[in-house]
Amino acid sequence: MHALRCEAELKSERVARVVYESVLPDVKLMPARRSRVDIDRRGNNIQIEIRAEDVSALRASASGVFRLLALSERVITTVLGDV
Amino acid sequence: MHALRCEAELKSERVARVVYESVLPDVKLMPARRSRVDIDRRGNNIQIEIRAEDVSALRASASGVFRLLALSERVITTVLGDV
Repeated sequence: MHALRCEAELKSERVARVVYESVLPDVKLMPARRSRVDIDRRGNNIQIEIRAEDVSALRASASGVFRLLALSERVITTVLGDV
Repeated sequence: MHALRCEAELKSERVARVVYESVLPDVKLMPARRSRVDIDRRGNNIQIEIRAEDVSALRASASGVFRLLALSERVITTVLGDV
């Protein structure tokens, strides 16, 4: 399993934009030795593409990206209330 | 983040078929209280759709499914050598 393409559906375009802009710096800082992460936003969906040399690196990157997305969405939803 | 659609690209259709058939029973057994996981296969790609009530449930299900996929792919690649 060397490539994973995911689309995360967020509650609104506003939340998606803030989540995307919040996680982008961290995604760019993710180590790129064994995997590469690309992230994009379209409307209220965030697209993630991960390519890796092996399945462990793929899982580690996927887990890291989802942790960033989940945390930032939780912060935003808490700050902005039900958006 | 209440829905996640992923497509995992496996090395070959054969590996994808064996991985899919290996993980399907476990995916069906995954608790469905706060999230629902659907999995399908097309060629050498495995499609995963996860819907959840909250982002923590979504992350837990995603992590669980990727662990199953990663483990089964590793077993198959080890057994069948470089397929």
